[in-house]
Amino acid sequence: MSTTPRPIPFGIMLQGPGSHMHAWKHPSNVPDASVNLGYYIDIARTAEDNGIAFGFVADGLYINEKSIPHFLNRFEPISLLSALATATKKIGLAGTLSTSYSDPFTVARQFASLDLLSGGRAGWNVVTSPLEGSGRNYGRPHPEHALRYQIADEYLEVVQGLWDSWDDDAFVRDRDSGTFFAPEKFRRLDHKGRFFQVEGPLNIQRSPQGQPVIFQAGSSDDGIALAGKYADAVFTHAPSLEETRTFTQKVKNSAIAHGRSAGDVKIFPGIGPIVGRTEEDAEAKYQAIAALAGLDDALAYLGRFFDHHDFSQYDPDAPLPELGDIGANSFRSTTDRIKQDAREQGLSLRQVALQAVSPRPNFIGTPEHVADELIRWFDAGASDGFILGFAAQREGLDDFVTLVLPLLEARGYHRSALEGQTLRDHLGLPRKASRYSTDAEPARKAG
Amino acid sequence: MSTTPRPIPFGIMLQGPGSHMHAWKHPSNVPDASVNLGYYIDIARTAEDNGIAFGFVADGLYINEKSIPHFLNRFEPISLLSALATATKKIGLAGTLSTSYSDPFTVARQFASLDLLSGGRAGWNVVTSPLEGSGRNYGRPHPEHALRYQIADEYLEVVQGLWDSWDDDAFVRDRDSGTFFAPEKFRRLDHKGRFFQVEGPLNIQRSPQGQPVIFQAGSSDDGIALAGKYADAVFTHAPSLEETRTFTQKVKNSAIAHGRSAGDVKIFPGIGPIVGRTEEDAEAKYQAIAALAGLDDALAYLGRFFDHHDFSQYDPDAPLPELGDIGANSFRSTTDRIKQDAREQGLSLRQVALQAVSPRPNFIGTPEHVADELIRWFDAGASDGFILGFAAQREGLDDFVTLVLPLLEARGYHRSALEGQTLRDHLGLPRKASRYSTDAEPARKAG
Ligand SMILES: Cc1cc2nc3c(=O)[nH]c(=O)nc-3n(C[C@H](O)[C@H](O)[C@H](O)COP(=O)(O)O)c2cc1C
Ligand SMILES: Cc1cc2nc3c(=O)[nH]c(=O)nc-3n(C[C@H](O)[C@H](O)[C@H](O)COP(=O)(O)O)c2cc1C
Repeated sequence: MSTTPRPIPFGIMLQGPGSHMHAWKHPSNVPDASVNLGYYIDIARTAEDNGIAFGFVADGLYINEKSIPHFLNRFEPISLLSALATATKKIGLAGTLSTSYSDPFTVARQFASLDLLSGGRAGWNVVTSPLEGSGRNYGRPHPEHALRYQIADEYLEVVQGLWDSWDDDAFVRDRDSGTFFAPEKFRRLDHKGRFFQVEGPLNIQRSPQGQPVIFQAGSSDDGIALAGKYADAVFTHAPSLEETRTFTQKVKNSAIAHGRSAGDVKIFPGIGPIVGRTEEDAEAKYQAIAALAGLDDALAYLGRFFDHHDFSQYDPDAPLPELGDIGANSFRSTTDRIKQDAREQGLSLRQVALQAVSPRPNFIGTPEHVADELIRWFDAGASDGFILGFAAQREGLDDFVTLVLPLLEARGYHRSALEGQTLRDHLGLPRKASRYSTDAEPARKAG
Repeated sequence: MSTTPRPIPFGIMLQGPGSHMHAWKHPSNVPDASVNLGYYIDIARTAEDNGIAFGFVADGLYINEKSIPHFLNRFEPISLLSALATATKKIGLAGTLSTSYSDPFTVARQFASLDLLSGGRAGWNVVTSPLEGSGRNYGRPHPEHALRYQIADEYLEVVQGLWDSWDDDAFVRDRDSGTFFAPEKFRRLDHKGRFFQVEGPLNIQRSPQGQPVIFQAGSSDDGIALAGKYADAVFTHAPSLEETRTFTQKVKNSAIAHGRSAGDVKIFPGIGPIVGRTEEDAEAKYQAIAALAGLDDALAYLGRFFDHHDFSQYDPDAPLPELGDIGANSFRSTTDRIKQDAREQGLSLRQVALQAVSPRPNFIGTPEHVADELIRWFDAGASDGFILGFAAQREGLDDFVTLVLPLLEARGYHRSALEGQTLRDHLGLPRKASRYSTDAEPARKAG
């Protein structure tokens, strides 16, 4: 298949020292990276200066002594992204916030405010919170999986409604006549639903991109349905080109079923390339990362996906034990995948755990090889871009921008300068019209 | 009374164009000031460069077409203050957030995160939300006044508990041994109360100032009790030196009754000085501000404090009508004061309304006069500092820093450079010790 080259949009995870559980021990990182604003600013500027479209902040609402070290102590997304807004100029700023443990009026305001003060660069990664313990920090039972997605659906309806409280030209601010706003362009939502009653309006205007970009990160069927209905972008796993392409098609079909078009939702698998000048070099970098976690760490890490199940009680060289429903209400898509891989490939517990904690990335090798692979995935329609989540952030990012991006640029698959101004510009999405505007997209089919 | 001069700490309101309802029309301001980040950065830097200790963001959770123009469209406090954190170096960053419409786990995180990323400069203005309509944006009934304060009390207990989740030296981050944290310095809260059940711990460490500064802004007896128990600082009205001193004494007595000392809580009346090179000059500036609002505006403005009561139905030249309980569940201390003043001074509705919308400040005149008055209040113990809320922000601030602060500095009542690094430093408050620390202050008496 021959395809005309076009730039691949990249995002970058902003999660302290990197995605590896013990990334804080990696010599390229400062050990306190997850709470070091200067470090985040450096990373965001490196990304921005090299044409990376957005930073992406993950989040969680529950920790215990077994949590991943840099999750124990990290900045909260809204405050971190707002701080980065004044330290950067063009890069998009996306962050995670849970619909299971927050109020739509507050969340609508915070993202609208970030969006406006950053000049239209905000994105919201809508999650439903996988961890049971979150409920104990909010004094209410953790809703089960299906209910979490029902809540999320109504929640998004409310938030997007609130974001259109003011028409784009509502604020007249005419000093001579004393007219601050046009009353007919001021919209009360009056939402009355199953989970939420929200009158509105919101006390903030729309931004240069209309509304913040909606990211969605659940990969279950419920997650895909939610994405098809509302998401501008989806953050997902990247097990293989074929599986990722299948997932991408599912989400795009879901969008079409909701009266949208395939291009309205962009799919971003998360990948953690390891690049070396030679193959041996790349392999050595991977081994240095894998050495950060031993078997004990690996078993604890695996347990995290299964409701902190204690895997140290089993023989590590026997097959992965039967786990029944453990963890089914948390990271369902991840636990299903782990169990399936173990079954199909006949893996021992040790193999499953080590692979979970220090996965060999599917983008590893020389700069040419990694660039080829990225182009192959992109041209094959497996994704619309990638989110870079390096195991060891500082080393991974520096290698990627110095070794891979120039190759992509030479081949027409990258631009080292961000040309647009808003996050929607960077993602190739049009400005979001207000639902009250005459040139708004046709209303979505109910779903 | 002769007193040794010492610097008066000042804060500055960050509320867009200023405190006057129609400040957006004032020629010194940009009309979109409430949503113009560049404008906020300029104001914050002017303040910081002139030794003003902190910026202070007010907030509200309900608007309708009768709201004050710059309340209709404004940044949300956490995002605004976080954005200002990277644009400034030393100035404190305080913002309002309501305990009636939020979750303590989230609020604890957001302020802790702002505090940490700003290097220990955060303050939280704890309010209970005066406006009934707030409940309609959150799908629950607006709690009545006493209940709001009972919720706030338990809320603060939880938040301050969460802020001590990690001892100051909990994070070891020793790469050689692989030890990220010391487990015995990791504290679960396990709060089970009347309104909140919160397990904890919080996923963020303590900041250079230990905990964010607690501001409190309710002046009713319930508000004073809450301040005495928890507040580091109180934001209040400044009707006259004597009344303000009486209020200050009440709050300090309340602190003492809670086992704290008078110096533990700093009182900051809000004032809006108008300064001119001559008295006529100052008067002309005041008249220019008063001219921004006519009688219709004034009646609508007055109505805001009384649950949007329609005052245009009355003869403006008759006395203020009997209002019974209208507004008693909202701005109680303000409405009580308005009714009392009207009664005592025999004011007409017109007079009450015009005075409400364009109050003649009690600090108006030449630089020498305003400096004298500030020193007189301060030396008389009426307050521990002042929050500057200029009717027209840009003009008011520029006049104050160029005309008044140099006089105060010459007399030993100001320093044009902030010497400390944290907000507690700027306010003369010690670092807040963890409740688990052996050198923590003795536990508060229950109250
Ligand atoms: C790639 C990816 C990233 C995710 N990031 C987060 C996150 O940062 N915070 C969070 O609470 N959940 C996150 N989730 C969890 C999901 O949002 C969701 O709550 C959970 O996976 C259960 O939904 P699912 O079964 O639809 O995947 C992520 C999931 C995926 C697949
Ligand atoms: C000087 C001052 C400033 C206040 N600022 C705010 C504010 O920014 N946002 C808010 O919701 N309430 C604010 N309030 C309202 C109070 O927090 C409180 O909700 C209301 O006044 C009722 O309490 P009270 O009767 O104790 O004064 C303020 C009150 C005072 C006295």
